[in-house]
Amino acid sequence: MSEMLNFSEAEFVERVRKTKASMNQKGIDVLIVTDPANMNYLTGFDGWSFYVHQGVIVIADQEQPIWFGRGQDANAARLTTWLGDENIKGYTDDYVQSLVKHPFEFVADIIKERGCDNKVIATEMDAYYFSAKAQERLEASLPNAKFKDGNLLVSWVKIIKSDAEVEYIRRAARIAEKAMNVALESVAVGVRQCDAAADVFHAEISGTPEFGGDYTSIIPLMPAGIRTSTPHLSWTDGPYENGDTVILELAGNYRRYHCPLARTLILGDAPQTVRDLGAVVAEGLTAAIDSIKPGMTCEEVERVWAKSIAKSGFIKDSRIGYSMGLNYPPDWGEHTASFRPGDKTVLKPNMTFHMIPGIWLDDCGVDISESFRITENGCETFTNIERKLFVK
Amino acid sequence: MSEMLNFSEAEFVERVRKTKASMNQKGIDVLIVTDPANMNYLTGFDGWSFYVHQGVIVIADQEQPIWFGRGQDANAARLTTWLGDENIKGYTDDYVQSLVKHPFEFVADIIKERGCDNKVIATEMDAYYFSAKAQERLEASLPNAKFKDGNLLVSWVKIIKSDAEVEYIRRAARIAEKAMNVALESVAVGVRQCDAAADVFHAEISGTPEFGGDYTSIIPLMPAGIRTSTPHLSWTDGPYENGDTVILELAGNYRRYHCPLARTLILGDAPQTVRDLGAVVAEGLTAAIDSIKPGMTCEEVERVWAKSIAKSGFIKDSRIGYSMGLNYPPDWGEHTASFRPGDKTVLKPNMTFHMIPGIWLDDCGVDISESFRITENGCETFTNIERKLFVK
Repeated sequence: MSEMLNFSEAEFVERVRKTKASMNQKGIDVLIVTDPANMNYLTGFDGWSFYVHQGVIVIADQEQPIWFGRGQDANAARLTTWLGDENIKGYTDDYVQSLVKHPFEFVADIIKERGCDNKVIATEMDAYYFSAKAQERLEASLPNAKFKDGNLLVSWVKIIKSDAEVEYIRRAARIAEKAMNVALESVAVGVRQCDAAADVFHAEISGTPEFGGDYTSIIPLMPAGIRTSTPHLSWTDGPYENGDTVILELAGNYRRYHCPLARTLILGDAPQTVRDLGAVVAEGLTAAIDSIKPGMTCEEVERVWAKSIAKSGFIKDSRIGYSMGLNYPPDWGEHTASFRPGDKTVLKPNMTFHMIPGIWLDDCGVDISESFRITENGCETFTNIERKLFVK
Repeated sequence: MSEMLNFSEAEFVERVRKTKASMNQKGIDVLIVTDPANMNYLTGFDGWSFYVHQGVIVIADQEQPIWFGRGQDANAARLTTWLGDENIKGYTDDYVQSLVKHPFEFVADIIKERGCDNKVIATEMDAYYFSAKAQERLEASLPNAKFKDGNLLVSWVKIIKSDAEVEYIRRAARIAEKAMNVALESVAVGVRQCDAAADVFHAEISGTPEFGGDYTSIIPLMPAGIRTSTPHLSWTDGPYENGDTVILELAGNYRRYHCPLARTLILGDAPQTVRDLGAVVAEGLTAAIDSIKPGMTCEEVERVWAKSIAKSGFIKDSRIGYSMGLNYPPDWGEHTASFRPGDKTVLKPNMTFHMIPGIWLDDCGVDISESFRITENGCETFTNIERKLFVK
């Protein structure tokens, strides 16, 4: 077992137990987990190797999961997971981006070898990095198996964090606060946007003296001016200008656990609309957060926000937040619970969320957010940065 | 048309023309492009929105491609592409990570609306971010269509770069040189690995005074010590120690175009094996690069390397390089040509590659690399950093 594990072996065993319980409930014998965050959750596996096919196979009646991936990444599995060597399976390099062989044929061979080729097999059908071709190759190679969709099965298991996981998010929060303060300091009229972004990256990766930072699953989103009319643009190499609205959506990351945080900054003479929007967003966010109690549903929380902004005339037609935590690019959201109409997920202690009720108009936008944990009787926000529109 | 285009409209039109010619040859009427780099190549689209389903639909007999994505990202399409507003289609937020609706049902509706639901439709079946579920929903929603695999079709079109694209890679090369010099300076015994990584990120994003940097598609891979026995681990928050081998694989990025670059650094008393390995890799890399001429095949180049290292006793059982350029996380490689046995791709002027013949043993490894362009009579390496094992 590796010395680099971020959690106790007992915690990993418990995570696998819960996963198998959910598999049993859904009639799944074999679950192929390809989402890098879910792989990490079950085994500890950590490496930038999700650009080739890799995964973890959970078999209901076998103790440890099996890691599979490219041969040269097998040492990463030995170094970062709790798995025994017999459960680390590297494929040869001729499978990589080949036109004649596919890594999921190798996966099928493992499943045959373990005597499971006539079982019920589930894949994460809508997960990043699990392709349509992978599914096709797997089905063609295992004609006696039955296939089910196991999408988000592990994601729902991991929605309630352990205390050890929450502690990692708290450390990420210290990094997020540092990065936000650097951003508010560095962004200024005349400064090149890329130079301010560089300062933010530096703060995120360096972290604090106690806790070094890891890369975040989304780059710092720092659009300025007209680019704030949409949420997923970032810096350019031009300078900030007087009157620019600058959105700062960033995160701290500690050992793959995120604490996201967004604020909006106005440089000089910003339009009154943006100022009005900022006040409305901050007030609605506070109202929603103050209302939170375990036992509420996600849609009930959204309704508090919706009621708060209704009087303003601004319209928000997208979800206002989502479950978050352990993740890899391209997203720190977990794709399970969202604060939006129709989401009946019941809030429970140690669920962790990012509430980001951004509003984007035709020519500008405002993001103000908080990350928090559901507690026994309310919620605990992770960071402590004034909840307002900043003006400089 | 947007003022933020990175290339002339004529260049985009030509890229689409080449894509349609390849579609015609393969009997494809409609190509759904979901690879973010291929989307950018055809339309200019740039945004960190690939964490939700999005893409570009190329229809053989219709002039412009059609962008589809989340409603809030439609303004990003308006700001960054050459497409007319009638070809920018945003879906409502209830499609996002929903359990009852899927964005590829929305895509099917567009295809019906354009009268193509009985045509031959191809998807990028093994591309990142195109899921098995997306394929399933598309096929279920278009029962009269015929489906083909259009994987890498656009990637093969873009393997030969325009002069404007090569110029962007040259700018990225200036940033890569700067980042490598910063890495060689910052990494030192006693320094926290995350602090050195932070300096590298800063250099990459800030770029040069002339050319601001963009985020790279792979994080700086900076493993040290035992973690160099595998290629895709990166920094920790522990300090570098005397005797550590440190691999530095990083890149410059200018407007999504990469110039990757790797060097290896020994801190103090590194084992003789690593020094020997460094000399072998540097010599083999130089031999392979010096041999390159247009008209050679990729496997012929690999054979020059293999012959060079054969005498050393070290074994390299994975490909030694690949086509690269425009890209998004998680990879800067293009998944087309690779320098490896069996790859018969013929080298042509303005193809661009990253040759990285890393060797990883049980307890250590060495990476030394060059990025280059095939010229009319040889090749042009993009960066100028001494090709050797560095010792500090």
